[in-house]
Formats: sequence, structure tokens, C-alpha cells
Amino acid sequence: MAAIPSQQILDSLNWRYATKVFDPAKKISSADWNALEESLILTPSSFGLQPWEFVLVENPSIREQLVKFSWNQRQVADASHLLVIAIRTDIDAKWVDHFVSRVEEIRGDQGAFTGYRDMMAGFVSNLDEDGVKQWAKLQTYIALGQFMTCAALMEIDACPMEGFVADQYDEILGFKDKNLTTAVLCPAGYRSDEDKYAHLPKVRFPKDQMISRI
Amino acid sequence: MAAIPSQQILDSLNWRYATKVFDPAKKISSADWNALEESLILTPSSFGLQPWEFVLVENPSIREQLVKFSWNQRQVADASHLLVIAIRTDIDAKWVDHFVSRVEEIRGDQGAFTGYRDMMAGFVSNLDEDGVKQWAKLQTYIALGQFMTCAALMEIDACPMEGFVADQYDEILGFKDKNLTTAVLCPAGYRSDEDKYAHLPKVRFPKDQMISRI
Repeated sequence: MAAIPSQQILDSLNWRYATKVFDPAKKISSADWNALEESLILTPSSFGLQPWEFVLVENPSIREQLVKFSWNQRQVADASHLLVIAIRTDIDAKWVDHFVSRVEEIRGDQGAFTGYRDMMAGFVSNLDEDGVKQWAKLQTYIALGQFMTCAALMEIDACPMEGFVADQYDEILGFKDKNLTTAVLCPAGYRSDEDKYAHLPKVRFPKDQMISRI
Repeated sequence: MAAIPSQQILDSLNWRYATKVFDPAKKISSADWNALEESLILTPSSFGLQPWEFVLVENPSIREQLVKFSWNQRQVADASHLLVIAIRTDIDAKWVDHFVSRVEEIRGDQGAFTGYRDMMAGFVSNLDEDGVKQWAKLQTYIALGQFMTCAALMEIDACPMEGFVADQYDEILGFKDKNLTTAVLCPAGYRSDEDKYAHLPKVRFPKDQMISRI
């Protein structure tokens, strides 16, 4: 494996922007989308517990229906792919056991997991329902960050979106029956030539105001 | 700009792991660290508001002092660099104005920012103190995700850490006087040959359980 030159990474991060208008005719290839799905799966999470589900909304009429519950932002319908990142609402000691079984399946039973299991189960049970939800939601933002970065490196556009009516999303996507709730959205695809935001310089505070040394 | 082959990205994501033992003798070059700082600056955030500060803790005795407030995890002292991602506790209408000034400085006054300003100020003022903090903390996890991904691509190891006593960090790092509070840590550097975790297979739930289609 060879390290990717840092300038190439920074060029990609400078190239990306929160895409406001996608070209509905340009589709992400299935090879590229599969790689992005793989990058989602590989997202790190607290204890490795992966308290999420990644939902690809493909049905065009459902996507059209979601627009009005997304502050009328057309990206939800127009982008090549609509990724909804959901958190599980059933993260408890049972989920921890499910995870520990998976660890044992992959790494073999090294007899070292009981303490780890109890520590994770203790962590989860010390949080109330809202606390678990907040913790899980934080993890989904790692996935969001990694997904956007990977997409940019592959020259695929994306638009992180917090502006949506979560209850309506949960209802339309049938999440309540699946113990899921919508955390954040990220339509992905290719920018339209007509997106004026594509040409605006990026706005960041100066580095010396954002980074400090102690 | 050329897209980076997706297999190269996935190889990097498979190579990375939450590094438990860093080699204290191996330091990230200043060129590489500068690039990582640049990647932090380029992190996307809600409305672009960048409600954070990235704090590099360089003082060895402070880093040593932080170990006991980090569940005795030595990464905090041993990794080449210790990144503390903090959220600002003063995100309010004034911060929004500060941001809008920066937008005008970079993009010129296009007279289109009053509505944008009011929308952002309305969003912030509709949240209570805890709500602002939660929203800001979510944004820092995008930064964490992007940072870890970029580090992996550059073959630099990292260890995301939520296990620390935030009050003690805030106290030791003097955050209270700076309107900051610790959100999450990410020591970075190079894995030690002695880290047995480096050789364990990665544990993820199967793709068909984590990704669904609607």
C-alpha cells in the first residue's frame, strides 16, 4: 500500500462543496457506489458497536415525496443516490451481545471478551434512552464525515443535510417497525452545470483562529 | 484533478484501526501534520458555522497529566500528536454575525446574506444551551471522521477516544476561559510493533445487515 500524496487529498477536499443542484441525468456507477457502501461499512464507531443502518432510497416516487419534508430541497429527489443514515433505537445489552458474537465469529473465542462485553453493556445501560440516542447519533456523523471524504476523493459530489422532518422520514421509510430513526441525509451524485454554488470560493475561518497549540 | 481509485481508498480504510499502542519515537513530519490541519479546516459543518476549535496539545507534561483522566490510555501521551477537538460554548447570534462577516470578506457583499443570516440566527436561538452543544458536538464528529480518513490515506495511525473526563480536560487545558469544552480526542502518529491489535481482523457486521434499500 502506498500513501496518497497529501496535496491530492487537499485538492479533493477543496473541490467538494455542499452540492445544491445535482444533474439528475448523471448516475454514480455501480462499482463506485459499491465502494462507497464499503466505506460506510468500514466506518469506525465507539466500541465498534455500529449503532446504525445505512438506507439507500431508490424508489423515485418515495424520493419525490420526501422533498416536501426536506425544506423542499430537490437534492433528495435529483441526486443519483439518496443515502439516509439511521440510528438504531434498540441499542441495549442485547445488541452488545449480538456484537460480541460477531467479534467471536471473526476473531475466534479468545476468552477475553467477557470483561469487554460487561464494560460495553455497563456503558449502554448507564445511559437513558435519550443518552443512547445522542451517543448513537454522534457515531453516524463519523460515517457522514468518512462518506463525504471518500466521495470527494472519488470525484463524486454530495450534500450533507440536517434539514428534514425526522418523524415524516421515519413514517415514510417505515423506520418505526424496524427500530430505526433518521439521523442525517447525504444525497450523492454529480453537480449540475447550473449550480452557481459550485463556483463560489469556500468560506472557512482563518487557520490561526481555528487551531491552537498548548 | 484525478479521482483516487476506490480500491486504494478501501485499502487505506482496511489498514487503519483504533491504535492502542503508538511508537513514541516515530513523529509525524511537519509537512504531513500541516496537511492534516488543513483537512481539519476544510471539514464541512452545518451552515458552514464551524462551531469548533482544534487544539494540539504539545506540552509533554500536560499530555502526561491527561493520561489519568483518559482511563489511563497511554495514547494520549505516547502518540506523535494529540488532537483535542473542542466545541465553542458561545455559539449565538453574535457568532453567526462573525461568520457572515467572513462570508462577505471572502465572497464579497452580494446583498444576499441577510436572509441567510436571519435563518441561521433563528436556528441557533431556537435551541437551548444543551441543544446548541449537542448540535455543535455532532459537527465535531464530521471533523473526526474526515481527520481519521485523511490520516489513513496518508498512512498515519490514529485513535478516536471518547473515554476521558471532560471537566478535567477543560480545566487542565484552560478551556473555561476560552469558551471551549472538550468534545472528542484523536491522538495520531504511528503504531508500535508491539500493538497486538494491529494484527486482529476488523470486526464489522455483514453488509447485508447494515445496508438496506427502499
